[in-house]
Amino acid sequence: MGFAELWDSLLPLGRDPRTGGYRRQAFTPADLACRRWFLKTAAERSLRGHCDRNGNLWAWWDVPGVTRTSVVTGSHLDSVPDGGAYDGPLGVVCGFAAIDLLRARRFRPACPVAVAAFCEEEGGRFGMACLGSRLLAGAAQPGAAAQLRDADGVTLAEAMTAAGLDPARLGSDTELLARLGAFVELHIEQGSALDGLGAAVGIATRIWPHGRWRLDFAGRADHAGTTRLADRRDPMLPYAATVLAAREAAAGHAALATFGKVTAEPGGTNAISSAVRAWLDARAPDEAVLYRMVGQIEAAARRAAAGHGVELGMRLESFTPPVEFDPGLRARLAGALAGRGITAPELATGAGHDAGVLAARLPAAMLFVRNPAGVSHAPAEHADQADCEAGVVALAAVIEELASR
Amino acid sequence: MGFAELWDSLLPLGRDPRTGGYRRQAFTPADLACRRWFLKTAAERSLRGHCDRNGNLWAWWDVPGVTRTSVVTGSHLDSVPDGGAYDGPLGVVCGFAAIDLLRARRFRPACPVAVAAFCEEEGGRFGMACLGSRLLAGAAQPGAAAQLRDADGVTLAEAMTAAGLDPARLGSDTELLARLGAFVELHIEQGSALDGLGAAVGIATRIWPHGRWRLDFAGRADHAGTTRLADRRDPMLPYAATVLAAREAAAGHAALATFGKVTAEPGGTNAISSAVRAWLDARAPDEAVLYRMVGQIEAAARRAAAGHGVELGMRLESFTPPVEFDPGLRARLAGALAGRGITAPELATGAGHDAGVLAARLPAAMLFVRNPAGVSHAPAEHADQADCEAGVVALAAVIEELASR
Repeated sequence: MGFAELWDSLLPLGRDPRTGGYRRQAFTPADLACRRWFLKTAAERSLRGHCDRNGNLWAWWDVPGVTRTSVVTGSHLDSVPDGGAYDGPLGVVCGFAAIDLLRARRFRPACPVAVAAFCEEEGGRFGMACLGSRLLAGAAQPGAAAQLRDADGVTLAEAMTAAGLDPARLGSDTELLARLGAFVELHIEQGSALDGLGAAVGIATRIWPHGRWRLDFAGRADHAGTTRLADRRDPMLPYAATVLAAREAAAGHAALATFGKVTAEPGGTNAISSAVRAWLDARAPDEAVLYRMVGQIEAAARRAAAGHGVELGMRLESFTPPVEFDPGLRARLAGALAGRGITAPELATGAGHDAGVLAARLPAAMLFVRNPAGVSHAPAEHADQADCEAGVVALAAVIEELASR
Repeated sequence: MGFAELWDSLLPLGRDPRTGGYRRQAFTPADLACRRWFLKTAAERSLRGHCDRNGNLWAWWDVPGVTRTSVVTGSHLDSVPDGGAYDGPLGVVCGFAAIDLLRARRFRPACPVAVAAFCEEEGGRFGMACLGSRLLAGAAQPGAAAQLRDADGVTLAEAMTAAGLDPARLGSDTELLARLGAFVELHIEQGSALDGLGAAVGIATRIWPHGRWRLDFAGRADHAGTTRLADRRDPMLPYAATVLAAREAAAGHAALATFGKVTAEPGGTNAISSAVRAWLDARAPDEAVLYRMVGQIEAAARRAAAGHGVELGMRLESFTPPVEFDPGLRARLAGALAGRGITAPELATGAGHDAGVLAARLPAAMLFVRNPAGVSHAPAEHADQADCEAGVVALAAVIEELASR
């Protein structure tokens, strides 16, 4: 089956007709439909499908009698709320299409080959990005993960149980890990660098360090129509000052800082807020720059809070150190692509990925596919079909290189 | 029955044990409990209790054979989300307690006297403040009101039907209005002016004009970790600039401007928002100042939006013109209180009230009770018991003045 047909079979699942965006957060009905699609797609190819202890899906091209570790490709099927079609699914669909291509060429792998779809990569439901790969790799505590709650108070354990999985089995899967020899994740680029370079595909060099901080501005609820400005302790004001300070600090450090989630309590149109909670997403080329930038943002937030009689609590919710992808594996990818006449520039990224998590346990690498507008995590995210097909060709070349005798 | 006992009988209804605040939005279980309390309290006093076509409650001290228009006191029982105990209920409880006091003194009214509790004064559930009094007075369209929806999509018509009321009967109640001769609302002060003046009670002169504007900042959703600052159209940034501009404009005009409600979409911690929606509450001593201030805020918002490639939609959601309370009625109140040796300073207010709505149809006035900390619309809202009892004495004096032969 060609890329387009396979892609079209997944496209309608979990699509919001109003926005054209996707809401495929883990274990929602939309995600469960994607999971069924994965296992059906594997079965149609006589690939051995299964779900591991951490909710990650696998489709195995087994090679009987061979004990060499396997070559794995894949990505994830879940999305951020109202995300695009490509972030995650493109790597899974290209993995299946690459296997179709290799089989059409009658390639015989010297080791098992697998397509994987990792669980809750976006953290869109339970708040921890790369949840499935972290659990697999022993980089997340299974007890704490089981008790993560979604916005409705449902725990991961409850959601897994409802989906027919056993949360008591969550945790590092050393037996499975021992069978993995290399992981190559194909992913849509989340910026427009490849477009600027005129290349359909690229090879990732590293992932920037990334932190998420929660800021709690606690003021005093009051009536918006009767409380004098001088008597107010309005947490919205220091929050606003912090948003502007974060942008200024990011520009000054050639880094990124974003407030994309904020809630005001009690949230009445005629009430001064008692509290404003906001989340800062911060990324920079290295850790020293990241901490300098966040320190500058925190200082500005504390000054603004003190000026309005508002208390500020600020704590790190998650931190991902920088990841350097395996230089040896990158060189083999570059060689395989060059051998097919494919130009694949190298580029760094600010986004976290399952490949970044697994890089701590086995050689991992990433291929990016051109995203002309650079839009990501939004319905307008797009890659041209020709570039997706170039991604399939590149991925097949890489699998052939790694899974050859 | 004294004030304290009556107050304590209402106090537990709808109280949130976590915050000590109240969630008595119209036709919620907490509000229905307050409504049962009202009718039981009326029945215990042989006052004729009933609910009018618009969900407002009445307790009538009828005077057989008398055709003079009646004297009405009261306020409302609903609250903002997590509001205080006093805003609204104090006027209802003091109304009943004043009747108890007048009867203990064997006062015989020359006209009917009533205590009223108006429906959804805060607009905390269906978004239209003073809903019940507006409908009664013909200041709101019954068809449109019936279709107002709460945050869960429930219409007012559905909520009324579930409470056993008939939404088809919503609308101006001219027969009831014709029976009303004067309305005096007692209310906790929503600032600390009386405390500064050393007075337990005060008389309202006027209500500031008040507008609510909705601002829609529409940007473009993108990945927070990969989109360059220069490529972003992040609506959170012009929102933040507008919050700070509103404060500056309010200070410059000796007026009030507040953003207490904001939502970011899609609301992911690692996503640049596609849209930020926010509500501006603005009030000023007169309409000219109000419009000058809001014009200044809008200009700042448009400049900031344009600077970030963000579209701004801004529209007026509600507007309440200034209200001057009836000078003749105010003079009678002042005279009655002075005659009892009660000092009651005059003061303006920035908050809307049912008395302000009814002032368009009949002579209306307000008494305020001291609020030492000035906290309003929050759990810490408080009036001392002695001041509440002074409010009962003042209200009884006013009713005696207005309902005497």
